[in-house]
Amino acid sequence: MKTLGVGVVGYGFMGRMHTYAYQSLPMLYEPSPAKLRMVGCAVRTPASQELAVRQAGFEFATADYRHLLEREDIHIISCCVPNSLHGQVALDAIRAGKHLYIDKPLAASLEEAERIVDAGREADDGRTRQMAFNYRFVPALMRARQLLREGRLGRIYTFSFRYLHSTNADPARPLHWKTDRSAGGGVLVDLGSHIIDLARWLLGDFRRVLAHPVTAIPERPDGKGGMRKVEGDDATFLLAEMRCGAVGTLEASKLAVGANDDLTLDIRGEKGALLFDLMEPEWLRFYDNTAPGGELGGLKGFTAIECVQRYPAPASLPGPKLTPGWMRFHIHSVYEFVRRVVEGLPGDPSLADGLETQRVLETCYASPGRWSEVTGA
Amino acid sequence: MKTLGVGVVGYGFMGRMHTYAYQSLPMLYEPSPAKLRMVGCAVRTPASQELAVRQAGFEFATADYRHLLEREDIHIISCCVPNSLHGQVALDAIRAGKHLYIDKPLAASLEEAERIVDAGREADDGRTRQMAFNYRFVPALMRARQLLREGRLGRIYTFSFRYLHSTNADPARPLHWKTDRSAGGGVLVDLGSHIIDLARWLLGDFRRVLAHPVTAIPERPDGKGGMRKVEGDDATFLLAEMRCGAVGTLEASKLAVGANDDLTLDIRGEKGALLFDLMEPEWLRFYDNTAPGGELGGLKGFTAIECVQRYPAPASLPGPKLTPGWMRFHIHSVYEFVRRVVEGLPGDPSLADGLETQRVLETCYASPGRWSEVTGA
Amino acid sequence: MKTLGVGVVGYGFMGRMHTYAYQSLPMLYEPSPAKLRMVGCAVRTPASQELAVRQAGFEFATADYRHLLEREDIHIISCCVPNSLHGQVALDAIRAGKHLYIDKPLAASLEEAERIVDAGREADDGRTRQMAFNYRFVPALMRARQLLREGRLGRIYTFSFRYLHSTNADPARPLHWKTDRSAGGGVLVDLGSHIIDLARWLLGDFRRVLAHPVTAIPERPDGKGGMRKVEGDDATFLLAEMRCGAVGTLEASKLAVGANDDLTLDIRGEKGALLFDLMEPEWLRFYDNTAPGGELGGLKGFTAIECVQRYPAPASLPGPKLTPGWMRFHIHSVYEFVRRVVEGLPGDPSLADGLETQRVLETCYASPGRWSEVTGA
Amino acid sequence: MKTLGVGVVGYGFMGRMHTYAYQSLPMLYEPSPAKLRMVGCAVRTPASQELAVRQAGFEFATADYRHLLEREDIHIISCCVPNSLHGQVALDAIRAGKHLYIDKPLAASLEEAERIVDAGREADDGRTRQMAFNYRFVPALMRARQLLREGRLGRIYTFSFRYLHSTNADPARPLHWKTDRSAGGGVLVDLGSHIIDLARWLLGDFRRVLAHPVTAIPERPDGKGGMRKVEGDDATFLLAEMRCGAVGTLEASKLAVGANDDLTLDIRGEKGALLFDLMEPEWLRFYDNTAPGGELGGLKGFTAIECVQRYPAPASLPGPKLTPGWMRFHIHSVYEFVRRVVEGLPGDPSLADGLETQRVLETCYASPGRWSEVTGA
Repeated sequence: MKTLGVGVVGYGFMGRMHTYAYQSLPMLYEPSPAKLRMVGCAVRTPASQELAVRQAGFEFATADYRHLLEREDIHIISCCVPNSLHGQVALDAIRAGKHLYIDKPLAASLEEAERIVDAGREADDGRTRQMAFNYRFVPALMRARQLLREGRLGRIYTFSFRYLHSTNADPARPLHWKTDRSAGGGVLVDLGSHIIDLARWLLGDFRRVLAHPVTAIPERPDGKGGMRKVEGDDATFLLAEMRCGAVGTLEASKLAVGANDDLTLDIRGEKGALLFDLMEPEWLRFYDNTAPGGELGGLKGFTAIECVQRYPAPASLPGPKLTPGWMRFHIHSVYEFVRRVVEGLPGDPSLADGLETQRVLETCYASPGRWSEVTGA
Repeated sequence: MKTLGVGVVGYGFMGRMHTYAYQSLPMLYEPSPAKLRMVGCAVRTPASQELAVRQAGFEFATADYRHLLEREDIHIISCCVPNSLHGQVALDAIRAGKHLYIDKPLAASLEEAERIVDAGREADDGRTRQMAFNYRFVPALMRARQLLREGRLGRIYTFSFRYLHSTNADPARPLHWKTDRSAGGGVLVDLGSHIIDLARWLLGDFRRVLAHPVTAIPERPDGKGGMRKVEGDDATFLLAEMRCGAVGTLEASKLAVGANDDLTLDIRGEKGALLFDLMEPEWLRFYDNTAPGGELGGLKGFTAIECVQRYPAPASLPGPKLTPGWMRFHIHSVYEFVRRVVEGLPGDPSLADGLETQRVLETCYASPGRWSEVTGA
Repeated sequence: MKTLGVGVVGYGFMGRMHTYAYQSLPMLYEPSPAKLRMVGCAVRTPASQELAVRQAGFEFATADYRHLLEREDIHIISCCVPNSLHGQVALDAIRAGKHLYIDKPLAASLEEAERIVDAGREADDGRTRQMAFNYRFVPALMRARQLLREGRLGRIYTFSFRYLHSTNADPARPLHWKTDRSAGGGVLVDLGSHIIDLARWLLGDFRRVLAHPVTAIPERPDGKGGMRKVEGDDATFLLAEMRCGAVGTLEASKLAVGANDDLTLDIRGEKGALLFDLMEPEWLRFYDNTAPGGELGGLKGFTAIECVQRYPAPASLPGPKLTPGWMRFHIHSVYEFVRRVVEGLPGDPSLADGLETQRVLETCYASPGRWSEVTGA
Repeated sequence: MKTLGVGVVGYGFMGRMHTYAYQSLPMLYEPSPAKLRMVGCAVRTPASQELAVRQAGFEFATADYRHLLEREDIHIISCCVPNSLHGQVALDAIRAGKHLYIDKPLAASLEEAERIVDAGREADDGRTRQMAFNYRFVPALMRARQLLREGRLGRIYTFSFRYLHSTNADPARPLHWKTDRSAGGGVLVDLGSHIIDLARWLLGDFRRVLAHPVTAIPERPDGKGGMRKVEGDDATFLLAEMRCGAVGTLEASKLAVGANDDLTLDIRGEKGALLFDLMEPEWLRFYDNTAPGGELGGLKGFTAIECVQRYPAPASLPGPKLTPGWMRFHIHSVYEFVRRVVEGLPGDPSLADGLETQRVLETCYASPGRWSEVTGA
């Protein structure tokens, strides 16, 4: 079995999540696509460096991610830094010929995202470069895509995609870079990018969008005893029209008191409908409008298809009928990435997928309150 | 259209419910099977007599139900008196040649129930005599029976039927005849008779039962300032084996804090399964074990068949997609009774069905804690 | 007890529903606010006239609703005609000094709605004039309003109100006046008016809206063998900002395959959140953000408040713990109207409430795709 | 940080699960209670030995678990062998002075379980010996226990605990040791032991039980082309009375078509009620009967307390609001075991807890169909 050296850039929440995912492959897949060696971790503070080594067993840690790029025994770079630093790490990793697994969003701006994709195209080196759009790896959503591809919903009429957190509902919560546009933040970027990607993946490209960003709390504590104007959105509502003709709404919100990690999808087509709720990821609800109806209702109704964690082989632990949990999706995302590295395949979702999401984000922020074409691609 | 005169015996909660059901037929069914004339109501107190006339428009009220039996323009007797009085009213109504609609349980004892059924058999007068087992008229349960009859579940392995109320959970609640065995009460009688009937209707006859009645509150206020020993059960648990081989449990309880009107059914067969919850009567959940499975789960899962109020014609108000509510089931039960009266058909559920439920009740109370054959029929 | 004569104008689905509601009052409320006499019904065709008399027991039926207005023994006019005829009936009924119960929407245009409200104001005759916004009379929504009024949600941040049917999803379905703008139809009018009224009732007035109407099926069978261009919307999406500052979306759709009568509300405030689903009208889901949290989650979570049919006295049939069903809400709406007639109170919801909903509808249809102020009131 | 050497005995599904749990501690807890070194694995076949080394990184594998016991650098023995071998491994591990983490059930018989507990008591060596009752480590169930301990449910009246799988529903499925009584199997042992332990943990000890085991498929393929008589139960129903006075039912079944991993709990007390469903482990449903009621329902209703994965510190990955999944509970169970090893605490759940569950199992199998006292302890 091939051994792949991994370098992780950033060791915050996502850095730890990626690391745990790499570590989990041998136990959860039999055979594992590769033997993973956690070689190095680049993270700014000495405390985080110490943590990465102690906790995850990295062979070394460094403040400068270029030390990872220099190493020949590091084949994979996992990019988990804050959004504003994505561009630089990604470009350098591509230039260094590394396989790249990069958290969403691809970059802090459309222009930067385009430069990254261009760099990848120019490199043309057979490396696998993949976005960490982890929700594409929920079995229920994999099943949703199958059903859509098979035409089981027919023409799609309408949809409603929502991703709700409650984080920003408390006005006393200090400003965080995730809510700060100048740091590449904003709720549409943070949560919206997930449902924008899912919309593209499930329904195809966007034709036009109309965005309404909301900053409900105009000023927040700056963490230094003062107050600071909030530049990002606490929630953004989108009207969207897809190229396939489907029309719908997307809502990315951190104002949703009562939400935990509430990503819900609702898709209605001529022949069927789909519902999904990330807080009950075991089920994909599918309505087959071609099922027999009749006086007492026939068999029409939403079927809670039991997707649970029915991953295809070589997934082997735990069983397909046991609840998966949120981390499982990240692990399978990383599995698919590593498998593609080993098999010499391009990443899927690709950096170009990341770019398309970036394009929608940029279009939304550029002219709120007006229909704007999503041009490009 | 035929005009049928109705006499209602008893004007408590069930008396009013029956009355409203008869009154509702013309608006809810087009054509209505008959024109119903609310002729007379027999109820003990003058206040109730006044209420029946004022509220429901009965042409007269009386303390003596025999005054209803004497009238030639009363064709139908609806029996809504307390359980201990069922026998006398039913026997007299049969002897008087009336069509009879009688609330569950049929009688206060097995022996009395047998006498009633015998009287009906001997009368042999083409009259319709029907039990008010209203839950047989929930569209979702009508659908359940269809699926079972079609063999969609294959061999039935196990089941769990529960009917939960919270009425007796408060120890300070005074004794009520419904909890008093000497008055023909007890929770198994009151709630259990419904699920026993549903079990018979859906799964066929009982072979044997093992009952465990529980009196959680041994003494209750007698309503006169003192305390009285409780003779009835607050809850009864049954193990049951059906003649078809299915094994399961039934629970009738008024100790279930948190329950409103929680009747739930769970049936598991080799080819499929069914779930139902009376608090969401719109749906019958059906699992088709013959549906395609596969790596990502195929299409297997519980389908929430949308039964809502998909009654067959001539049901005409309101639409089939609007939530039905509990009263709708009673109204359809009365509709079916009246239709059978007009068409000269025997009642269904029949008095014999009432008798079989009584037989199970009697078997349960007779030897708690031991398996007992349900003999007869 | 007072006797009130009722005249019903229109005897389609809503005419029959109103009629059944009046008839149901004496049995469902003790004491009933009045004795209701179903005097006359005005409906176009002789077949419908025959039906009204036979089915509902009206003393007479007529093609000309003015015959009802002339009668002194008709105190109440229930207006159930198609939208395009509302204006005339309402104005005449007001001029004739009748109490008026009128189905939504108030009129076919804003101008007409204003004339009706003006007529009512000028009449100044103490008559009760009330809109049939039946969903205000769902116990769970009455409870929602209480909680909002008590400030239990604090500042409202966002909301999502949806009303979904599947009626128009089939392209082969012929054109119907309910989808025809020239006949006062359209899905926003038909379904949207309900959620617009609920939004106003629960959250206060609208400040501005941005509407995106969708006509998914541009041509439909005209019922005469040909095809006709569809002028109305199959679905409309709204972005809305309320005067209280809340921002959200509304969706009225008849393209939602899988829907039965799916009206859902989602309201998120600083201190709490509310969820409601008309297909499970028993429960109001309330999240109390002031509940204790803590390491293992404290007590925070959505409570499914058991509203079932907990109507205040004199509601007396059936019990508060039994599922209500859709008709129950109409009946309570009519009860409240009749009570107000008897007590000499103005209608609530008033014609002015109907006008405000009409104002929002008109604003939406007037300039789709752009934010428009909802001016007036 | 202390380094603990781990030896895993058995490398089937549970062996791999335990192994992954030990490996996960450093990433999921900060600080981890110890550094875990996966030293050796004892498993019968060379293929499994190869797998254990390759997949999990064990330093060596062996067919003889005594080789693990001999090693001084192995401090912890995780026992994951089939039930019939538990006794020998456990006794030897205790004698060897190892910390012991042992899967349920403790042993293949009550007598063996007693010997193990006696051996532990006699050893008196301060070692941690703990049962792998993983469901005690579901946050929602940890919360349930808190609420019960706080008296939030008052006196417990009734309960219904069910654990449903569908594995045995197919008659063509060959016999497996898990269904074979002579191999220490049976569904009551396999699934029932979990809910028996939960009942004890949540409600206290059993007073008496009445068991009804069902063997629905009397013969199964023996895997060698023939058929063999089935000696174990496919499902067992229990009536149970707890020492606290609560009465209820338990059902362990592998005949439940439609089930994935459906463990459900329903507990009703005078002051409140609790519901839990393992397929939606995020929520504990709690009904507070002391909440205000009133005309429109007050605030009474089931609250879906958001337990998700709100583990106390040092749990640090992932966040408390992300769905946990089934493996997370095993990991926390192992965390608690390792923490207790490090802190010198006895196991909790202890081997004595395992013995008590064994006692209930033995009582059930000993005299089916009759109430039997659970004596001992």
